[in-house]
Amino acid sequence: MADTEDTCKILVFFVNGKKIQDPDIDPEITLLYYLRNKLKLCGTKLGCGEGGCGACTVMISKYHPQEENIRHYSVNSCLTPVASVHGLAVTTVEGIRSTRNKLHVVQERIAKAHGSQCGFCTPGMVMSMYTLLRNNPIPSMAQLEEYLTGNLCRCTGYRPILDGFRGLTSDGMVIEGCGRADCCKFLRDKPGVINVPNCPVNGINEDNNVLEENDISHILYENDFKPYDPSQEVIFPPELKVHPELQTQNLEYRGPRLIFYRPSTLQQLLKLKAQHPEARLIVGNTEVGVEVKYKNKLYPVLINPSNIHDLTAVKRLDSGLQIGASVTLSKIGQILREEIKERKEHQTRIFTAILEMLKWFAGKQIRNVAAIGGNIMTGSPISDLNPLLMAARATLTFCSKERGERKLLMDENFFTGYRKTIALNDEILLYVHIPYTSMDEYMYSYKQSRRRGDDVAIVNAGMKVIFRKENDAVQDIVLAFGGMGPTIVMATNTMKELTGMSWNSSLLERGLSLLLEDLPLSPSAPGGMTEYRRALALSFFFKYYLNVLRQLSLRMPDKVSPLAEEELRAIEEPEHMLPRSTQLFQKVPPSQSTVDPIGRPMIHTSALKQATGEAVYIDDMPHYENELYASFVYSSHAHAKIISIDESEALNVDGVVRFFCARDLAREKNRVSKDNVVFVQDVVTCVGQIIGMIVAKNQPTAQRAAKLVKIQYEDIKPLIITIQDAIREKSYFNKWTLYKGNTESALNTSAHVLEGEMHVGGQEHFYLETQAQLVVPSCEDGTMEIFSSTQNPTDMQEKVAHVLGVLKNRVICRVKRLGGGFGGKETKPPFVAMPLCIAAAELNCPVRIMLDRHEDMVLTGGRHPFLCKWKVGFSDQGILLAIDADLYANAGYSLDISHAVVQNAMFAMDNAYKCDNVKIIGYVCKTNLPSNTAFRGFGTPQSTIFAEDIISRIAAFLNANANVIRERNMYRTGDTTHSKEILERCTVRRCWDEVLDQASFHIRKTRVDTFNK
Amino acid sequence: MADTEDTCKILVFFVNGKKIQDPDIDPEITLLYYLRNKLKLCGTKLGCGEGGCGACTVMISKYHPQEENIRHYSVNSCLTPVASVHGLAVTTVEGIRSTRNKLHVVQERIAKAHGSQCGFCTPGMVMSMYTLLRNNPIPSMAQLEEYLTGNLCRCTGYRPILDGFRGLTSDGMVIEGCGRADCCKFLRDKPGVINVPNCPVNGINEDNNVLEENDISHILYENDFKPYDPSQEVIFPPELKVHPELQTQNLEYRGPRLIFYRPSTLQQLLKLKAQHPEARLIVGNTEVGVEVKYKNKLYPVLINPSNIHDLTAVKRLDSGLQIGASVTLSKIGQILREEIKERKEHQTRIFTAILEMLKWFAGKQIRNVAAIGGNIMTGSPISDLNPLLMAARATLTFCSKERGERKLLMDENFFTGYRKTIALNDEILLYVHIPYTSMDEYMYSYKQSRRRGDDVAIVNAGMKVIFRKENDAVQDIVLAFGGMGPTIVMATNTMKELTGMSWNSSLLERGLSLLLEDLPLSPSAPGGMTEYRRALALSFFFKYYLNVLRQLSLRMPDKVSPLAEEELRAIEEPEHMLPRSTQLFQKVPPSQSTVDPIGRPMIHTSALKQATGEAVYIDDMPHYENELYASFVYSSHAHAKIISIDESEALNVDGVVRFFCARDLAREKNRVSKDNVVFVQDVVTCVGQIIGMIVAKNQPTAQRAAKLVKIQYEDIKPLIITIQDAIREKSYFNKWTLYKGNTESALNTSAHVLEGEMHVGGQEHFYLETQAQLVVPSCEDGTMEIFSSTQNPTDMQEKVAHVLGVLKNRVICRVKRLGGGFGGKETKPPFVAMPLCIAAAELNCPVRIMLDRHEDMVLTGGRHPFLCKWKVGFSDQGILLAIDADLYANAGYSLDISHAVVQNAMFAMDNAYKCDNVKIIGYVCKTNLPSNTAFRGFGTPQSTIFAEDIISRIAAFLNANANVIRERNMYRTGDTTHSKEILERCTVRRCWDEVLDQASFHIRKTRVDTFNK
Repeated sequence: MADTEDTCKILVFFVNGKKIQDPDIDPEITLLYYLRNKLKLCGTKLGCGEGGCGACTVMISKYHPQEENIRHYSVNSCLTPVASVHGLAVTTVEGIRSTRNKLHVVQERIAKAHGSQCGFCTPGMVMSMYTLLRNNPIPSMAQLEEYLTGNLCRCTGYRPILDGFRGLTSDGMVIEGCGRADCCKFLRDKPGVINVPNCPVNGINEDNNVLEENDISHILYENDFKPYDPSQEVIFPPELKVHPELQTQNLEYRGPRLIFYRPSTLQQLLKLKAQHPEARLIVGNTEVGVEVKYKNKLYPVLINPSNIHDLTAVKRLDSGLQIGASVTLSKIGQILREEIKERKEHQTRIFTAILEMLKWFAGKQIRNVAAIGGNIMTGSPISDLNPLLMAARATLTFCSKERGERKLLMDENFFTGYRKTIALNDEILLYVHIPYTSMDEYMYSYKQSRRRGDDVAIVNAGMKVIFRKENDAVQDIVLAFGGMGPTIVMATNTMKELTGMSWNSSLLERGLSLLLEDLPLSPSAPGGMTEYRRALALSFFFKYYLNVLRQLSLRMPDKVSPLAEEELRAIEEPEHMLPRSTQLFQKVPPSQSTVDPIGRPMIHTSALKQATGEAVYIDDMPHYENELYASFVYSSHAHAKIISIDESEALNVDGVVRFFCARDLAREKNRVSKDNVVFVQDVVTCVGQIIGMIVAKNQPTAQRAAKLVKIQYEDIKPLIITIQDAIREKSYFNKWTLYKGNTESALNTSAHVLEGEMHVGGQEHFYLETQAQLVVPSCEDGTMEIFSSTQNPTDMQEKVAHVLGVLKNRVICRVKRLGGGFGGKETKPPFVAMPLCIAAAELNCPVRIMLDRHEDMVLTGGRHPFLCKWKVGFSDQGILLAIDADLYANAGYSLDISHAVVQNAMFAMDNAYKCDNVKIIGYVCKTNLPSNTAFRGFGTPQSTIFAEDIISRIAAFLNANANVIRERNMYRTGDTTHSKEILERCTVRRCWDEVLDQASFHIRKTRVDTFNK
Repeated sequence: MADTEDTCKILVFFVNGKKIQDPDIDPEITLLYYLRNKLKLCGTKLGCGEGGCGACTVMISKYHPQEENIRHYSVNSCLTPVASVHGLAVTTVEGIRSTRNKLHVVQERIAKAHGSQCGFCTPGMVMSMYTLLRNNPIPSMAQLEEYLTGNLCRCTGYRPILDGFRGLTSDGMVIEGCGRADCCKFLRDKPGVINVPNCPVNGINEDNNVLEENDISHILYENDFKPYDPSQEVIFPPELKVHPELQTQNLEYRGPRLIFYRPSTLQQLLKLKAQHPEARLIVGNTEVGVEVKYKNKLYPVLINPSNIHDLTAVKRLDSGLQIGASVTLSKIGQILREEIKERKEHQTRIFTAILEMLKWFAGKQIRNVAAIGGNIMTGSPISDLNPLLMAARATLTFCSKERGERKLLMDENFFTGYRKTIALNDEILLYVHIPYTSMDEYMYSYKQSRRRGDDVAIVNAGMKVIFRKENDAVQDIVLAFGGMGPTIVMATNTMKELTGMSWNSSLLERGLSLLLEDLPLSPSAPGGMTEYRRALALSFFFKYYLNVLRQLSLRMPDKVSPLAEEELRAIEEPEHMLPRSTQLFQKVPPSQSTVDPIGRPMIHTSALKQATGEAVYIDDMPHYENELYASFVYSSHAHAKIISIDESEALNVDGVVRFFCARDLAREKNRVSKDNVVFVQDVVTCVGQIIGMIVAKNQPTAQRAAKLVKIQYEDIKPLIITIQDAIREKSYFNKWTLYKGNTESALNTSAHVLEGEMHVGGQEHFYLETQAQLVVPSCEDGTMEIFSSTQNPTDMQEKVAHVLGVLKNRVICRVKRLGGGFGGKETKPPFVAMPLCIAAAELNCPVRIMLDRHEDMVLTGGRHPFLCKWKVGFSDQGILLAIDADLYANAGYSLDISHAVVQNAMFAMDNAYKCDNVKIIGYVCKTNLPSNTAFRGFGTPQSTIFAEDIISRIAAFLNANANVIRERNMYRTGDTTHSKEILERCTVRRCWDEVLDQASFHIRKTRVDTFNK
């Protein structure tokens, strides 16, 4: 773009009603970074940095001069380039309180309904809900769910959050009463009463007695919940209404490493793209932003085409819809809904399929900014839309400055490889043409992911068939799959072979077997789970077959018979239930003093602060003037010798202060425990171990430089990843046997003996706030103050004192609050803090870190995967006579507290069931994985699952109801043997380590021996 | 100066061996500011900002290429422009430790000899001593004293500091033993033994018993004091030796408000001065620096002539010495000493007089940098050198680019007004010519100041007489006085009249009466004390008369008779005694556990840290990134209505954030107590009250902007300043009567009755660290954290909570240490902190302040001045029969804790003397002065002085020894009446407020009534 006079180089936007004018904008930084670091608005949080968790949600408001209205969008500020908010109004959680002392109803409700626990997701929840209310003051529950799909919470289970918000909806306060005249149903008009799905008599008090109705209250909060009053909202900045040209100006922002253009005409855009063929076009930055953050990519030229009329328009043509490449998914959803309403059913079958898929396409925040063109052109092999567009036989119009326009069909030739298309470098996608469907066309979409909404697909598919006129013979069929190769693939052979066939079971059979050949997936394909993925592809085809068959049966009841009930069940979507919940409280007598909290639904002390964004987490703490930021250099090999470390290139980066690694530290200080060091010295034993650390003036510099440190490795055998690997290599930290009775002889005398094997996978803690530390040295006495997100300040103090070589009382660990922990901040935080403390002491500067999500996940480990090999003996009645189980836990490269996890699991192996002969061997497997650690339950969930599985197997074997078998085996109330044994177990657990020292330990029936200690 | 290629614009110097290169230097800032704020070397402290206290002392080292040696100078970094250290090496207290864990002997000794208490002066003390050792590894005690004159300490009384250092001198370890064989004198070789002036048997233990010699120890510290080893010192930066041209380069530094030039030739200098006639020449910046700091002056062009050869040379001419204007006073001292050694006695009489004066000329640090030219040209009316130069008939050579050189005699025409001379704007002083004296010339210098060294003169004088050859008739006499007018004045009429007279008593008489006319000083002359000053001038002349007479008597014994003994006593300087002291400790038995501290001379916990500069005081705390600095706007009228406040000009200053004053605060929050507010609202009642506050990005900006706030006043009558004013206006906060017995009748029946009046002045606390606060808001719950230099954190918490309108538990006051307090940080700190807290809460930024010394002195008040009017009755033996005293304390504009001070004084009015009839009336006078407050002693020192004065008067009246009268009146050991009464007094003191409420209170003989409450 020529440096014309009308090009604006100053960023102008509004935040919470305040005008920001920044002539010195770095287009590389995100809106989130700008809010938190430049404007010091730290209410908005960084949870994942890739638009997946919603903690960074803010509202963007835009004035549409043609329509003379203002629209509000919730967006992920972690992906939004700050450069892209020119001319817009941003509202953060700090901006929605009407006065200093008056909370917004959304803030008040989430807090008072106990919808915040750690509180780290709360500002994002608040902003999603707030945006909904701004767009629709009385929304439906469905809309509420839609707006919240992009927001994750790890503490509450969402129900109290919905409890807080449902009262603001039109349909959330459904009460199902018991029918009595004094039923709580009639309390619905009382303030603060929450949905009561069951009659209060279902409430159970501590003594296991049914409560009298009088004892129970559903009143969350005694004072009135204020209703939502849209007239009290802050007004849209009038200046932005008066100057809508801000939205359409040419923009050019030059940063140290990249240029950001926002042209205003197609000619300018084409010229820019011709000048910079390598330039990336971004609208929502939802793909490029993630690449930059997590794949260390740098795109020196970014062009935002969101203001080019050709690219933002949607045209209704006779043949179908022509959608500009910059149109967002939310906007497409809105248009498709209108189309479906206005047109005949058969015409919009493609649209219905797309709309169905859009529900599960990421979260609301992403859909609000991500454009269809971006989705097509980034060519992800698991794109949710592309299989559908291909199945729809969509046509793409490209344009370049040199060669003008050309049209391309989205067929099997369009994607040429992993994230590659046949489009040329200087070409720009102008629009997508999606045809209307004919009477004889049927299209459906399918997606399987780990979580229904807001998750990437494992496999997805778009399928369309055209029948010969009024016939069931296939004229044309398109089967497009995502997740089955490096690109979206079409099952071209299957498609060819099925053409002409009738839609019946032989087509199905033929299709299934052809697909298997058409969609080969080598066992080593990226993403793994290849068998599962192939099965998914087949099952999608099966579902599609049934869906189409059902349509045919409706249209041609004479030719096609209706589906059998079980066939119908296979394709019927389960009815979507509105989320329901209730919170019951013991009623407080009117005589109880108002300051007596007993029995009242008190909100916790930080709840209101969390809802307003005021609650200060580690990374929200004000920065010191001379503060530095740390970024770690992680091992990229699982088991290897470090040959060399070359930090020279990193040190050349402007703003880098120092590199630290094991050579900066005496060996005895570096060694923190038997199998843990501060910096890995010679041999890495898992991917993600900390080898070194860059400290720099700020976070972007540190993170960039850390990636420039070069490590040479020499791989070492064996590489032990799975529990099976460990068993093969006999790689154990510990092995213990715990037994009572005589299992062997009991097995011999049992009526029945069953054996089996079960594996329980690991789990990521995914606390919303990643590991974060701020360490502040004092030049007095070598004192170090650590502001930490840790569950275990004492451990922090001890480890840091060791590594600094100071007395423990010189180390102060301060913990105000954590954005979640769940065990993941029990043993790991010192390993993040220790390197920082070394740098802080050496450089006499405060040092800060907050791990990026991918760092946190690779560094910290999670719940232990377990394998159980078991053999049980039982009677004809299913009474347990003997349990003989080998429990294996994958501990990772270091012991951490895995011994205690396995011990816990061993003790819980018989769950609540009585069995006189039990022998459990526990193995702590040493593998080349990150070291697993404490996690809610601490080993017991795993072995409890094993125990339940055993009961189910026995029930299946005996062809009995599993619950009956459970009851038969349970300890009874008043069974003193049981309570005595529980007591003994507690004792053993408490003094397990002593037990080990004594080699053998007796507590009557329970004995603990040590093998292979 | 033309922007020639050889002009250097980058500042290059070394700090503690580390090279600093700063291309962006602001010549306006001082070395101290640079060290503390840019280099974060906070060991060097700001005490006064005008070179008066030495807390900011650092060592500057300079390589002299001609002489191939390195010289070290202690300097006040608070006055040294950082621009002037180009090419030099700076050593701070942080730089003298050889390793992280090894203290320098100077640091170790001052700490272990208990030479640091608050520790704020300690780094400066250390650096002065260190510089001495670097220049002279085994100095004399006289040199030690010389080097320490510029360093103030308010806690120790200096003796333990000297105890620490004397062991490093050649003559400091003089032991005066008791003569016995086992006398501690012979312990002198034992490490850590300090001078013992008296035999240990003089030691007194707690039970008032003479200690056995075995009970006593002089061993300060049990381990060896290391001797000083100069070979272990850090080396001078070799780069500065290799590149001495750095010292002679042309320099030009342009800052936002001023330019700093350092030309290298006279031609360049003259050209610059012609271009910028308004430019100020600075060498040590000891005058201009103070003007800029305290008089709000801005000199946009500064020229440093310290590298011009003509100005730095000293030439020995036949007629006398020609001294370059840039030659420093230290250098002059050294040259004069050499001259005196080499020349005949009579030739150097002027030099001797100058040398004598130089001893008392400021401190060593000032003399090291201040140039003679600066002293002359700034033309201070109390300059210590100018009266001598005038008396010496020195000649000055000036030069300008236009007119070349001209010579001017320093006579009565040279100074034309307050700080004005007859030199033209474009002229530069090149050299001073000081003639040798002839056989018949006698010159002496005199100075009277509050403190002998390191203080400005009240009056000073230089006097020279030339007699006719071998005669006592005056041929020429010059009498020049400082402190007797707006310039240095010559008593021209006296000089004329005395010429020709013989040097005898009639000359003396004539001289004294003429001087009175020659030196008129109107009672309203600036500086006050006019009677005293006139008397000083006369006494100097009397001394001079005697000094000369004595010389004549020695030279012409036949003509002039020797001085009488009493005349000799009048002129003899008291013999200077080496400072002596000892610290005695109870001996610890060898069996005492080494970790048992009882009886051992333990050093306090911060002593070592204070000596190394590591101890963190408020202003040493690291800055927050978004921290602001506050500067107050003070009232300049003592009693006036505020008509208007105009902050507009201040707000225009770049970097200013906000102005706060009473209108920002609800009236009830602004009112902190009955007579104290946060910001004065309508009427100021003393000079120095806080009217408003500027907060800005940094200290210089805030301080500059605060001076731009315009306040309009309308004066109000009456203006009450003195206690007499208050008595006249009956302006009292309180009046109490305390009595026992019947004073009236006792007076009537006493043998003798005396009455009198005595006034005791106030006192400034002068804690070395001025009032300092750092307030850090948290956005959570309105919490405010105050890092404060306060003696009373609870008071701080209460007041701040009130003004912020939050619960007290939301205010955290953290006090680590104080740089002195002495009562001055008891009630005043909240008044400094409250405005900051208002700003911090409003702007959500940390705010810092450390008052400048002049602000602190005007704002905080000090010890109460007292007036006592008394009447006593006593017997012929001097036994007290009745005391009737009216005590008046000047409280200032607010009550503060003056009621308690006066109550204390009332109770101590009879000191330790027994008197059955006492009546004391205490008045707390309300005046238009800063509010006085707690101070060591809290009222008792004042009334104790009154009591002692009364005893002395009685003794004088009875012509008896005062000590005998004292003994006769004292309570005896075992006098139970006394101890009982003491107990009663304590009770009354404790519940005085209750007493007031009850209006009358009886404790047997002591009764307290309230009058005119």
